[in-house]
Amino acid sequence: MTAPSSAPSNAGIRRLVIALGGNALATAQDAGPRAQQAAVEVAMEQVAELVASGYEIAITHGNGPQVGNLMLKNELARDVVPAVPLDWCVAQTQATIGYLIATALERSLARRGIERAIAVLVTRVLVDARDPAFSNPSKPIGNDRRLVASPEPQRVLDEASIVRLLDDGGVVVGAGGGGVPMVLEQGALRGVEAVIDKDLCAALLADHLAADALVIATDVPGVALELDSDRPRWLGRISADRLGELHRAGTFPAGSMGPKVEACLRFVRAGVGRRASIAALQDLGGAVAGERGTIVVGGSG
Amino acid sequence: MTAPSSAPSNAGIRRLVIALGGNALATAQDAGPRAQQAAVEVAMEQVAELVASGYEIAITHGNGPQVGNLMLKNELARDVVPAVPLDWCVAQTQATIGYLIATALERSLARRGIERAIAVLVTRVLVDARDPAFSNPSKPIGNDRRLVASPEPQRVLDEASIVRLLDDGGVVVGAGGGGVPMVLEQGALRGVEAVIDKDLCAALLADHLAADALVIATDVPGVALELDSDRPRWLGRISADRLGELHRAGTFPAGSMGPKVEACLRFVRAGVGRRASIAALQDLGGAVAGERGTIVVGGSG
Repeated sequence: MTAPSSAPSNAGIRRLVIALGGNALATAQDAGPRAQQAAVEVAMEQVAELVASGYEIAITHGNGPQVGNLMLKNELARDVVPAVPLDWCVAQTQATIGYLIATALERSLARRGIERAIAVLVTRVLVDARDPAFSNPSKPIGNDRRLVASPEPQRVLDEASIVRLLDDGGVVVGAGGGGVPMVLEQGALRGVEAVIDKDLCAALLADHLAADALVIATDVPGVALELDSDRPRWLGRISADRLGELHRAGTFPAGSMGPKVEACLRFVRAGVGRRASIAALQDLGGAVAGERGTIVVGGSG
Repeated sequence: MTAPSSAPSNAGIRRLVIALGGNALATAQDAGPRAQQAAVEVAMEQVAELVASGYEIAITHGNGPQVGNLMLKNELARDVVPAVPLDWCVAQTQATIGYLIATALERSLARRGIERAIAVLVTRVLVDARDPAFSNPSKPIGNDRRLVASPEPQRVLDEASIVRLLDDGGVVVGAGGGGVPMVLEQGALRGVEAVIDKDLCAALLADHLAADALVIATDVPGVALELDSDRPRWLGRISADRLGELHRAGTFPAGSMGPKVEACLRFVRAGVGRRASIAALQDLGGAVAGERGTIVVGGSG
């Protein structure tokens, strides 16, 4: 497969990992089924264009509001229905959001006369049982903002299946919500109650899939400096070296833009000729074309 | 791949579809996470033996108690958290049960020194929007025994991905709970609030995967005649013709053994040399070996 001729600035970009923000898919104000479906449909119209242009695409997504809702249901129903652990809830959000994504993308592709296998994989991700995050839970989830551990992703356990399906021409939806976290204990895998950062997991997945580009779609137009000022400066194309300096200086908040920047840096630095973008959900296509959002390129740019 | 030498009665059986009963995985009395995990572990020990013997395996499963629990949570939490539709709940049970299955199977395989990709696919299944079931909801779900439609499965929409992964040597978990039901509406797929019979879906899947055998694992040792008497007669090997006669005579209850018998008949009759079994969950291995449960063979036997 060759790079799409309509996107000359993208020569060399063939395989993409797209990470959709959970908040971008469901605002905290209304995480109901219809709102989520509408947001997913907007995003998938753009993904369909990318599929039509010939890109190989793996899609991952956040699940913050959705997993919060499930934890809350657990609480409200716990006297009647046995509560399920957090790792089960993560798996459940992979299914529902993945199902929405697959269905919306299929509709958008059908309108273009394109038929393509779209596989939604329940995806588990290995973390280290000795990760310091486990003794310092820092990630708030659910309405009660309970803190859970957010360990580093080490390996997407279902990677081989994702590669196989992508190689076969399919679109794969996987590693949603950062993946279901598993630890290795006496040689056997066991689920743990934790939440993996979905952008860091996307970077790992993109690296292991040998993707050419990682696009993180969120609810702001890109990375900004002086965000609290009257005139924030939105970053366009920037080198990993320069962005890394800003990141080390603590420019980006830990709970929001920090991990996205970190994910872009990790992905771009782990290979040659790679590109990572952070852009608004509605600018997804433009971000891949190099025209929208913040675009991180290798080395000193 | 050749048939395992340890199972001479199975010459010619290479690809299996195993359907695990939702009730067998979680008794109605205790559908909590631990009980489900324990039941799945028992089943997966036997599936691991089958993998070790060289069979290609797709696993599907029921979700009755589990989807009931999710619907109940929806109800109990609905003033606080937006309720999600039934098709989302089906997808959620595919994720959690699939996750349990994959993790348990991986552990059982690891104990045998076997590494194998195990893929859990969120699976959608096409039904006909004009299926008469939609005007005659007959399937009770949830604690309030609300009746929903149970339309006929027409096609497993994610079949191509399942075939690809099986061909590549993986174990696939898919079409759980009979699949997420979708209808085609003006050329586009849309989820519907219905529940597809998981055994009929398993038969369709097994047929389309060109499986050699379908094994339906449940909470009784097989098919029985005179079940209400003091001495029920358990059926062993039986021809599709003979079982079909009994089925037509209304011998098997619609809500329980009827669809399992129907599934076996459909699968066996749709191809040559096929075998379908109904057996207890703990007799899974014996059922594949032809030593346990009710075994349905083609034609007049």
